[in-house]
Amino acid sequence: MLINVVNGNTTDSMTRTIGAAAEKVARAGTRIRAVSSAFGPPSIEGAYDDAFAVPGLLVRISEGEAEGAAAHVIACFDDTGLDAARALAMRPVIGIGEAAYHAAMYIAHRFSVITTLSRSVPVIENNLLRYGFDRRCARVRATDIPVLALEDPKSGARQKIGNEIERALSDDHAEAIVLGCAGMADLAASLSEEYQVPVIDGVAAAITQAEAMAQLGITTSKRGGYASPGAKRFSGPLADFSPR
Amino acid sequence: MLINVVNGNTTDSMTRTIGAAAEKVARAGTRIRAVSSAFGPPSIEGAYDDAFAVPGLLVRISEGEAEGAAAHVIACFDDTGLDAARALAMRPVIGIGEAAYHAAMYIAHRFSVITTLSRSVPVIENNLLRYGFDRRCARVRATDIPVLALEDPKSGARQKIGNEIERALSDDHAEAIVLGCAGMADLAASLSEEYQVPVIDGVAAAITQAEAMAQLGITTSKRGGYASPGAKRFSGPLADFSPR
Amino acid sequence: MLINVVNGNTTDSMTRTIGAAAEKVARAGTRIRAVSSAFGPPSIEGAYDDAFAVPGLLVRISEGEAEGAAAHVIACFDDTGLDAARALAMRPVIGIGEAAYHAAMYIAHRFSVITTLSRSVPVIENNLLRYGFDRRCARVRATDIPVLALEDPKSGARQKIGNEIERALSDDHAEAIVLGCAGMADLAASLSEEYQVPVIDGVAAAITQAEAMAQLGITTSKRGGYASPGAKRFSGPLADFSPR
Amino acid sequence: MLINVVNGNTTDSMTRTIGAAAEKVARAGTRIRAVSSAFGPPSIEGAYDDAFAVPGLLVRISEGEAEGAAAHVIACFDDTGLDAARALAMRPVIGIGEAAYHAAMYIAHRFSVITTLSRSVPVIENNLLRYGFDRRCARVRATDIPVLALEDPKSGARQKIGNEIERALSDDHAEAIVLGCAGMADLAASLSEEYQVPVIDGVAAAITQAEAMAQLGITTSKRGGYASPGAKRFSGPLADFSPR
Amino acid sequence: MLINVVNGNTTDSMTRTIGAAAEKVARAGTRIRAVSSAFGPPSIEGAYDDAFAVPGLLVRISEGEAEGAAAHVIACFDDTGLDAARALAMRPVIGIGEAAYHAAMYIAHRFSVITTLSRSVPVIENNLLRYGFDRRCARVRATDIPVLALEDPKSGARQKIGNEIERALSDDHAEAIVLGCAGMADLAASLSEEYQVPVIDGVAAAITQAEAMAQLGITTSKRGGYASPGAKRFSGPLADFSPR
Amino acid sequence: MLINVVNGNTTDSMTRTIGAAAEKVARAGTRIRAVSSAFGPPSIEGAYDDAFAVPGLLVRISEGEAEGAAAHVIACFDDTGLDAARALAMRPVIGIGEAAYHAAMYIAHRFSVITTLSRSVPVIENNLLRYGFDRRCARVRATDIPVLALEDPKSGARQKIGNEIERALSDDHAEAIVLGCAGMADLAASLSEEYQVPVIDGVAAAITQAEAMAQLGITTSKRGGYASPGAKRFSGPLADFSPR
Repeated sequence: MLINVVNGNTTDSMTRTIGAAAEKVARAGTRIRAVSSAFGPPSIEGAYDDAFAVPGLLVRISEGEAEGAAAHVIACFDDTGLDAARALAMRPVIGIGEAAYHAAMYIAHRFSVITTLSRSVPVIENNLLRYGFDRRCARVRATDIPVLALEDPKSGARQKIGNEIERALSDDHAEAIVLGCAGMADLAASLSEEYQVPVIDGVAAAITQAEAMAQLGITTSKRGGYASPGAKRFSGPLADFSPR
Repeated sequence: MLINVVNGNTTDSMTRTIGAAAEKVARAGTRIRAVSSAFGPPSIEGAYDDAFAVPGLLVRISEGEAEGAAAHVIACFDDTGLDAARALAMRPVIGIGEAAYHAAMYIAHRFSVITTLSRSVPVIENNLLRYGFDRRCARVRATDIPVLALEDPKSGARQKIGNEIERALSDDHAEAIVLGCAGMADLAASLSEEYQVPVIDGVAAAITQAEAMAQLGITTSKRGGYASPGAKRFSGPLADFSPR
Repeated sequence: MLINVVNGNTTDSMTRTIGAAAEKVARAGTRIRAVSSAFGPPSIEGAYDDAFAVPGLLVRISEGEAEGAAAHVIACFDDTGLDAARALAMRPVIGIGEAAYHAAMYIAHRFSVITTLSRSVPVIENNLLRYGFDRRCARVRATDIPVLALEDPKSGARQKIGNEIERALSDDHAEAIVLGCAGMADLAASLSEEYQVPVIDGVAAAITQAEAMAQLGITTSKRGGYASPGAKRFSGPLADFSPR
Repeated sequence: MLINVVNGNTTDSMTRTIGAAAEKVARAGTRIRAVSSAFGPPSIEGAYDDAFAVPGLLVRISEGEAEGAAAHVIACFDDTGLDAARALAMRPVIGIGEAAYHAAMYIAHRFSVITTLSRSVPVIENNLLRYGFDRRCARVRATDIPVLALEDPKSGARQKIGNEIERALSDDHAEAIVLGCAGMADLAASLSEEYQVPVIDGVAAAITQAEAMAQLGITTSKRGGYASPGAKRFSGPLADFSPR
Repeated sequence: MLINVVNGNTTDSMTRTIGAAAEKVARAGTRIRAVSSAFGPPSIEGAYDDAFAVPGLLVRISEGEAEGAAAHVIACFDDTGLDAARALAMRPVIGIGEAAYHAAMYIAHRFSVITTLSRSVPVIENNLLRYGFDRRCARVRATDIPVLALEDPKSGARQKIGNEIERALSDDHAEAIVLGCAGMADLAASLSEEYQVPVIDGVAAAITQAEAMAQLGITTSKRGGYASPGAKRFSGPLADFSPR
Repeated sequence: MLINVVNGNTTDSMTRTIGAAAEKVARAGTRIRAVSSAFGPPSIEGAYDDAFAVPGLLVRISEGEAEGAAAHVIACFDDTGLDAARALAMRPVIGIGEAAYHAAMYIAHRFSVITTLSRSVPVIENNLLRYGFDRRCARVRATDIPVLALEDPKSGARQKIGNEIERALSDDHAEAIVLGCAGMADLAASLSEEYQVPVIDGVAAAITQAEAMAQLGITTSKRGGYASPGAKRFSGPLADFSPR
């Protein structure tokens, strides 16, 4: 089974972190195609970056679909481009944000999210509302660590995340923690151990959910919101991506 | 990997239907333990039956946990006893109702549920509200087929379900259909084919979700609502199930 | 008028506290039948205990119905078994949790609940959501006093509850307080006096609501969710409770 | 016990209908003070009438409080002036709309409201939302009978209400019916009989709820929204009602 | 274009503050008719004052409609009498509360409201819920400054409001601030400057929204909730305001 | 005052319709800059087109900001790219979808939306939920007219829209109608006349709202979700749009 894992940004080192997290959790028979976005921003921090990340990300969805992927994972916690990817692909598309929430719903009554920048909080809150998980998410907490600083050991990222976990446990009465950035994928296990609470990494959650949906054999509904794009000719630098 | 699949009622023929559906979708390495509830009602139709089904169902959860199950599935669409089972078990517990909704959320914007008796509609609506999926479920439709009549070819069950699917597509603008009873597990594929819309069976969905959660390695949070029951001595016919 | 008051647990000393609170508020012509659950847990702390409390509790509902009760009260703040009891009985069934919320709605815009253990908070929050009172309840606060310790003067229970009332007034801007355990029934009046805010005990609220519903002469709807259980034969230790 | 029942309009024949419904359901020891509003509109149909009904209605609340009423009932289904009355009075104030919804919540999962004019539907929907009952009310149905025509046997009112009950049962899957006008008080019993479904009249519901709240001995919170009005001098025709 | 700006209370000095704020933001071609309520309370603090303010306020709406106003503004942050005014008038009616929220929605994801007395908080929260902005308003904060004290430089009002802005930014993560009283109209600009965050005054917002709606040429719907009041004769001191 | 009106698609004839609707409603002193998107899809039908429309649309926002626009209008009913545009611009950005809803809220309790293709319904429903208007929108109705067919007199578009208006009035009890596509801008007045109900065109609504916000002088909050994009270098065909 091929799972197409698309890092929403173009930073290959982060794609490697994502790929490693994916490989670690994937089943024996699963092949991971971990790719950076075809073009666009090197990190996604807020709605402007989100907008420019989508076309390059969709290119990778399209490639994965052509290569016979059984399911797709959008490895950006904002679930960037999720609806467009579902319109494009027949095979299920899973965002790492939503996958983490789904996993949290199975094991906890209430959870908190710990993300990077404050500007991403509204994006995440809007997603939670759309998915219906707003009633179960106690709070989305920002650490104000830039996305790419997560890779820098001197950024103090792990400590800042740990501090927010403590506050989530004491102030939000969170029963589980969701890490709100693909770049935090390698921290989940040790944080869970340290704070004695389930800590969910969206990449791992999404891989297992993608395998599950592929195994289930259900494909994206083509009635309504995810109907295949109608044939039309786009103009300009993105004309090559016109739907046929 | 062992998945403990508990039919919430005591009807073994229905357990066999559930077991077959589970085996069909499970991965190569997964072993299915499909069992009827230890004691209680032969079918679960409404809140009274629900209440009497839980103790016998929890016995089977407890056995499964002792046998080393990697995850548990409650194969009753009402998600009967879900919270109690989560308090009891460390390993993830998945209800077939919630699993079906989670699967629907990944592939459709709006879905409808088609269940058996009218009296089950409020139970299901309460669950949807709790999980946050009430905004995405257009309607819960009853066919007024008793649960065990699903096994009787002369009940006209398939036709009645088909009629409701048609109404769900035209009136509710449903993009996917969720079958609201474990006893409908064998109908999903052919109904999907006939009506050209994703039709989700909760048993299959729950097996794949249970495998996913087991693979993810996250266990039920023991902070808050799912904390292990405190030791105390129950009295009466259920005293053997006192928590220690 | 006979009101059937069922303590959801089997601890007779708590039944006496409940009975006394009931007698104190009941009208002259009301006869209180205060009984412990027929069998099950000695205290209800979380979802597992809830599940094992329901059958024994329903036995008492059934007896009360047979004795001609004009209404039933479930004297467990979790409103344990409420839907099943309504399916079973024709006469109105009132939970002490819901009764307290209804009373609070008549005299305050916003209220807070103060309960025993953290593990009960999700149960209560789920009820508030179902009933629609989640928008008016500022917060459910746990004191982490075990239920039966409420009877022990050395537990410091009254002081801990008082501390949470202070926080509810200052932090939640609560305009009324709901005491979240039947075992707190005797504290309401003095706490109300001390903190100069309405403090509602669910037992007293439920008795007056039960009298009101009985006087109104409306019985439980048998259309939909509370339809009488269909005749079927349960197996095992609870077979005697099969619906006929 | 004195219950102060204020018809929100000035039509004495309607006050007599309300008074009769109140007397019929009240306990032996309860004295009903049924009064028309001191001045204002002869019927309340929509938000403009509502606004002009409140001052005259509050006069009657004030009188009732002075006469030692144990509780007040606002006998207008729009719950006209409810917040102002609560700010004015110490004793509990119950609207007949809210009382009917509370009663419905105890005996049904889902209910529909059947009212007079379409213009009242938004007023009622806004109330349902505020109280939190919007999730349980399937639909507010208008019969387009003017309020005072309810008293005219030739208006066909009973038939029109019956027709809407039929639709509520078949289309809304309502499990109970709430009659949405004080002028329908005398129809509840016979409609319930005819359609075999609980039909709730708000006047009767409110009397029993008012007795219940009075018996409970809880008074309106004076913290926050229902704080007593601060002393100030109003000008113009309503100057006599300045708070002191 | 004539905009009819009605101060909901009778205090002319506050009407002058409102008028000045209105003139300052109005377009060249707009004529402001700033009037105090015809009669009623000198300040609106809570639901009782609200109720007695409406008739005098509606007199001014009626006059403005007769003078050919293109739109009406209700300059009380509680949006006092808004539905009644809409039933009365053909031309759009804008409350300063709702106008401020609408403006905040265009420029921020999350806002907080800072108002005068605690007793007004529930009124404002009910409005936010009705309008649908409750999900975007982080918190309604009271300063406990009486309305008319805003005009007194010695009241320390500006400092108290500033303190709450600081808390709204740090604790609520508010991205914009809404000033919750017409009497704060002259403070918005300097507070915005000082705290480097958009601070919205409802009077200015409502003037520009009223101009916008007038320019758009859409009038109040007369179907449903805002249908013109039916002709009937009111009794008592308000008889002159009977609808014809 | 310059208002920058960006047609989200690249079809100039539609931009001319939009421009004409904008000019018609704009004030004397307003200059309209009506432009097609810089590149992308010729029409926006569903989430895939939405995604590819955003970059070209943002180019036009950026140009408008540089030319000193006092406010921006995104003339696509899906409010495509709204959050990204707000992050990019200091001056207020108004979507025609949200502007139409805001206008409807001022003049009606309940409205229905009539749009083009079924696949756009989920996009619109998600927006309504985010903005908080889901409780006031009775239904989003699709006519299944492709966007560009609106320009073709032989498409029967006006008749199909009229049919849906009739259903919205009778079935949804809508008090106002919102036209759900910029290409319907020229139909609002005559449909309003024919069906005797306010019919709101988003383009006109947005122009007047944009003028209002510009006049109000409030700019987009740069705290939180709409913070200016951080400087980073995008790769690929969209590199020119990297934030600095």
